[in-house]
Amino acid sequence: MPRPPSRQPSRSRPLPAESVDWQAPWVQMKYFSFQPNVYPNMILAASPDARRGDVVTVYDKEGKVFGHGFFNPGGRVPLRIFQHGSEPLAADHFERLLREAVSLRKDLLRLEETTDAFRVVHADADRIPGLMVDKLGDVLAVEVSNGTALRKAKEWVPILQELLGTKQVTIHMDNAAQRAEALSEREIEEALEMVGTGVESGRITENGMRFHVDFQHGHKTGFFCDQRDNRAKWGSWVKGRRVLDVCCYSGGFSVAAKMGGAEEVTGVDLDEKAIELAKKNANLNQQRVNFVHADAFTWMRQMQKNGETWDAVILDPPKLIFSREAFEEGKARYHDLNKLALSLVETGGLFATCSCSGLMPVEVFEEIVTGIAHRAGRKLQILDRTGPGADHPVMSNCPDSRYLKVLWARVW
Amino acid sequence: MPRPPSRQPSRSRPLPAESVDWQAPWVQMKYFSFQPNVYPNMILAASPDARRGDVVTVYDKEGKVFGHGFFNPGGRVPLRIFQHGSEPLAADHFERLLREAVSLRKDLLRLEETTDAFRVVHADADRIPGLMVDKLGDVLAVEVSNGTALRKAKEWVPILQELLGTKQVTIHMDNAAQRAEALSEREIEEALEMVGTGVESGRITENGMRFHVDFQHGHKTGFFCDQRDNRAKWGSWVKGRRVLDVCCYSGGFSVAAKMGGAEEVTGVDLDEKAIELAKKNANLNQQRVNFVHADAFTWMRQMQKNGETWDAVILDPPKLIFSREAFEEGKARYHDLNKLALSLVETGGLFATCSCSGLMPVEVFEEIVTGIAHRAGRKLQILDRTGPGADHPVMSNCPDSRYLKVLWARVW
Repeated sequence: MPRPPSRQPSRSRPLPAESVDWQAPWVQMKYFSFQPNVYPNMILAASPDARRGDVVTVYDKEGKVFGHGFFNPGGRVPLRIFQHGSEPLAADHFERLLREAVSLRKDLLRLEETTDAFRVVHADADRIPGLMVDKLGDVLAVEVSNGTALRKAKEWVPILQELLGTKQVTIHMDNAAQRAEALSEREIEEALEMVGTGVESGRITENGMRFHVDFQHGHKTGFFCDQRDNRAKWGSWVKGRRVLDVCCYSGGFSVAAKMGGAEEVTGVDLDEKAIELAKKNANLNQQRVNFVHADAFTWMRQMQKNGETWDAVILDPPKLIFSREAFEEGKARYHDLNKLALSLVETGGLFATCSCSGLMPVEVFEEIVTGIAHRAGRKLQILDRTGPGADHPVMSNCPDSRYLKVLWARVW
Repeated sequence: MPRPPSRQPSRSRPLPAESVDWQAPWVQMKYFSFQPNVYPNMILAASPDARRGDVVTVYDKEGKVFGHGFFNPGGRVPLRIFQHGSEPLAADHFERLLREAVSLRKDLLRLEETTDAFRVVHADADRIPGLMVDKLGDVLAVEVSNGTALRKAKEWVPILQELLGTKQVTIHMDNAAQRAEALSEREIEEALEMVGTGVESGRITENGMRFHVDFQHGHKTGFFCDQRDNRAKWGSWVKGRRVLDVCCYSGGFSVAAKMGGAEEVTGVDLDEKAIELAKKNANLNQQRVNFVHADAFTWMRQMQKNGETWDAVILDPPKLIFSREAFEEGKARYHDLNKLALSLVETGGLFATCSCSGLMPVEVFEEIVTGIAHRAGRKLQILDRTGPGADHPVMSNCPDSRYLKVLWARVW
């Protein structure tokens, strides 16, 4: 596939004299950066044998080993460094990382004591760029987002299967990633088929609740492990309350509320398939929840007109900001949703509001929500600020991968 | 007590014509602010009958009711607004607030299911400036920090005693607050004696652990409820690990670690009385912990020289920043402590680091800690960011009252 030349690292540049000893395939960087993502303008040269999907040795401007990375000369991010420093790469490097990733979830976080659904590998935060793996019951759900991860998946998956005892595997690469990596349909399909894509559905257990998982709609399995601890907190804080779950998706917070002793629960979502799944989830747990298929904006406006209020409201919209260019637009949607949702919270009621947009900084999100409250003559008694479960870590050299933020408050 | 005239709101200013109808005692504000604390330069006038300790009606520049506050013309903060808006003050206003504060802890957070020690009233965050109340077992421990709270305590305490079923009460006002409020020793002593100050010690239970409480050393009871959830998390994440607890104080994190299954625990603190209490706490829970009475800096430097490392280290120093002027100095101490502590964490080990300085912003604290790691050629796999328990809320119009921050990471 032809690429504009400016996006290709130059291969014509004369190599430094020492390069005869360089560990090929290699890439040489123009600038210093400890971030994992290296863009085209930061690359000086690449060895002639460096090909898409290769694991390359990375050299700095002076010709010293800077680390190791995944290479894709035609990709939007041609180099993804997974190890900084001059140490050579061990033959079992990725196997070790996979073992450490699993050990974090099993031995340190001890997640298996409360659930059989958790994030096993969280890409850069587990030092494997482009690899996201969830264990969902006995299914390993793999999402790859770069060419090297796609190519390596067939080596990695059996290791994870053995460590986790899962019986089935399903792998996926989303369209945006396919475009960013400039991979052809055919090579992706071939790579994916070597791992497996045929799983249809499953069930998982989390803190005594059971949920259906639907693998037939791309990466959206209908289940987000990242809200596990927040579901548990919500469930434990709404006993005896009338609960509203806005953008309820497949009903996680609704079911948690009802099982936590909420008097009455209403869940609203525009996604018809999600509402269907939510109903199935309530039934699976023998809980009665009032699920409504509606646009959250329209529905909340109507409730506002009707003068309806709830004493516990949670708002967990899907990602609303997809690019820096669309920041203001996304911010406005967060504003409007939160303004409507807050207007439905009774005095003294509980409000939990989420943003899973990585481009929305936590302090801006808080400003939006408190600003809305103050302009309405109300105050927020902030009880907690949380993020995703610890199986979704953030590596300190990659702070932009922080995404989920939840603000918990009583409204006065 | 004579005060410099500039700190006194002017009483000689002619009152607006409508003021004949004003609800005395009153204070008129020069500027608009929704923060609870109103400084001398923001005050235009006060009614002649407005006295230290009064609950006053607050008017804005136009003579409209702006809210209600606590008044102390000689105090560093002469006005503390506890209610904004024009609604009149109900006769049982504070009783209602106390009931709501207790209800948050008992009915919403359901803290009694896991502990008999929690913060009952958290000052501005519960809309009662200057009143901090902990329930510690069967003792109500009250801390007041302004003249009105001091005067009102004798009305409020019996209400709380009844709601919580506590049997004893101890009240305290610290020296800094006494100076800021310009109160005399005698009036403070008289007010405190009306409530009670004679409690010596007690015991509390938290998530299956028991702790001694020592009321004989001022406000420092030897027990901080705010770290409850963090102690539980630490205990659950260190099973089988060698644990180091730097600035261990009375041993909360150490005991939680050992009871959580840590192989071996060492706690270090400079405060000899705290170490004594820590030893008693370990005994009370029949746990063996190695408590060391030493300066954390000196001791960690020695361990560094010895090449000692641990696979789980927690650092919870006392407040290190007391004023904006001393920010850089305090920041440097956080830096030095964290640098030493991080150097004692094994590769792949767990590191939890706390700052309880309200003047240290959460993002600056994170920058300090990640900066140290990066300069040492290490990375932090950030697992979570937490704060105090939800019984220590923050009111949205008073964001500066946020204080405790804990960063949880694996170190690579």
